[in-house]
Amino acid sequence: MDQIATRPHDALAAALKPELDAVNTLIHDKMISRHAPRIPEVTAHLIDAGGKRLRPMLNLAAAKLCGYEGPYHIHLAATVEFIHTATLLHDDVVDESKQRRGRPTANLLWDNQSSVLVGDYLFARAFEVMIEPGSLRVLQILASASATIAEGEVLQLTAAQDLKTTEETYLTVVRGKTAALFSAATEAGAVLANAPDEQIKALYTYGDALGIAFQMADDLLDYMGDAGQTGKNVGDDFRERKLTLPVIRAIAAADAEEHAFWQRTIGRGKQEEGDLETALALFAKHGTLDSTRATALEWSAKAREALTVFPEGELRTLLSDLAAYVVSRIN
Amino acid sequence: MDQIATRPHDALAAALKPELDAVNTLIHDKMISRHAPRIPEVTAHLIDAGGKRLRPMLNLAAAKLCGYEGPYHIHLAATVEFIHTATLLHDDVVDESKQRRGRPTANLLWDNQSSVLVGDYLFARAFEVMIEPGSLRVLQILASASATIAEGEVLQLTAAQDLKTTEETYLTVVRGKTAALFSAATEAGAVLANAPDEQIKALYTYGDALGIAFQMADDLLDYMGDAGQTGKNVGDDFRERKLTLPVIRAIAAADAEEHAFWQRTIGRGKQEEGDLETALALFAKHGTLDSTRATALEWSAKAREALTVFPEGELRTLLSDLAAYVVSRIN
Repeated sequence: MDQIATRPHDALAAALKPELDAVNTLIHDKMISRHAPRIPEVTAHLIDAGGKRLRPMLNLAAAKLCGYEGPYHIHLAATVEFIHTATLLHDDVVDESKQRRGRPTANLLWDNQSSVLVGDYLFARAFEVMIEPGSLRVLQILASASATIAEGEVLQLTAAQDLKTTEETYLTVVRGKTAALFSAATEAGAVLANAPDEQIKALYTYGDALGIAFQMADDLLDYMGDAGQTGKNVGDDFRERKLTLPVIRAIAAADAEEHAFWQRTIGRGKQEEGDLETALALFAKHGTLDSTRATALEWSAKAREALTVFPEGELRTLLSDLAAYVVSRIN
Repeated sequence: MDQIATRPHDALAAALKPELDAVNTLIHDKMISRHAPRIPEVTAHLIDAGGKRLRPMLNLAAAKLCGYEGPYHIHLAATVEFIHTATLLHDDVVDESKQRRGRPTANLLWDNQSSVLVGDYLFARAFEVMIEPGSLRVLQILASASATIAEGEVLQLTAAQDLKTTEETYLTVVRGKTAALFSAATEAGAVLANAPDEQIKALYTYGDALGIAFQMADDLLDYMGDAGQTGKNVGDDFRERKLTLPVIRAIAAADAEEHAFWQRTIGRGKQEEGDLETALALFAKHGTLDSTRATALEWSAKAREALTVFPEGELRTLLSDLAAYVVSRIN
């Protein structure tokens, strides 16, 4: 999720440095708990672990692109990062993860209880921080995105191992995992700026398409295997029986024998030595890695296209570069 | 938590029947998920399991007591119940509970993952439902209460087994566990009704004191042993090494030998046969069950006293009766 762009990302960070510094200050102010010191301990472990503040940057860039001069984009960016941090804490419990951003997860260092409760705390604080600016429409966007995130995660849980999972379901899961908070960050930035509807819509589309392209590229990389970039091993998703796009499309094109293979390996989880190689051969036979790549590129193009309602300028270029970059890893 | 009052509770439910029916309808409408059927399954398991809708009733009664005629007290009551349900789902994961309201918990019937994620979904939906009424001040109260709840739970987690736990810490935990959502429900009801500050403050105090009296009575009952009423066995809290008020006060009054006893049984958790009996004897020696009872009665009186800013009438009487009832179990 966070192995994004060194280049466009760093350029964005440089362009937004004063705002990002203010966001970091606000985050540290607001994560303090008067009563329970474990809350800032757990939060700091994750929030200071070198996350790239991608979502806050998307939000800040969107607001500025719409001419907003502050001050509440700082609150909004901190809110978005709090929501993101809360979902990471809960995800690591749900997935029983042991590593995140190259460090042991909070659930491993402390316990599941702390991760669940500190996540709840951050989620509540996120909304508290965002009440000060007084925009009900922004609150609506954030609450709705938060519901979509949880919904996507539940769907992923229940759709896992289900061979009937459709591309539509996959897209809902991807929106929940990644795109919903991206699009909420960009859309809410525009709303905060009182931008015209056309710009609000454009920034929603940009965030949505960027998130989808990003997650699709991630799912593809899982089978392309570049552990240096992804920090994962080839086929982790296969072993975890995840219905990502290459698999969904291979199942859709499968003959009876191939279907039995997928049923055994993904549906029932009876995996044997050599199965990953067979899966890769089936992807090649049906061209599903290529077609997934093509679809990811389409979403990236859609993200860049959405930005054309804005006049040319540094921020537009940086956001556009970011959308190109997220698929450059698979191209 | 929910073995409250049959009598005043039922009378309140009767007085608020049309509103409660509307709340139930709204809850069922809003718990639907377009994409993930597991969400309403898990939610319905808990929300239809005969919870007494105490918090929604407190909210409805508070709003009506301040002359509010609707319609948004329905939204607020549904929001409060969603927040409550979300915290129950997460609590049962945190406590590894197997039973709730006489039925297997969701984490047992489904899994921890579903409980965490469905809780997140309900929490997000709670805020979404409450945006429609458009009161930022109400949203602030709810977000702040949600943070207090999580904070109290984290504090309980970290203060557990710590013999240095003070009465002040205990009160913070109790507010998080119980009183914060009670007081948010009553305060927000008054705010929604645009009540004068004096009434808002009175209803906050009522909810806060009611919640504290209720939880203190619960903690006391744990050592008084009336499994029929509490559904728990005598000394569950002792076995779980919880620092509740009778224990905190016994430790404060302990001589060196007694302190060693508490250090062994609560601090280190090395419990032996007969320890519970010793604990009960130490409570008797220092009168800590009696003093806890007295303190609970003071909070109950404080709750009833707060209501006197309102003119006499049915709702005021019912709320007052409720505050008397929560301590009648220990009197």
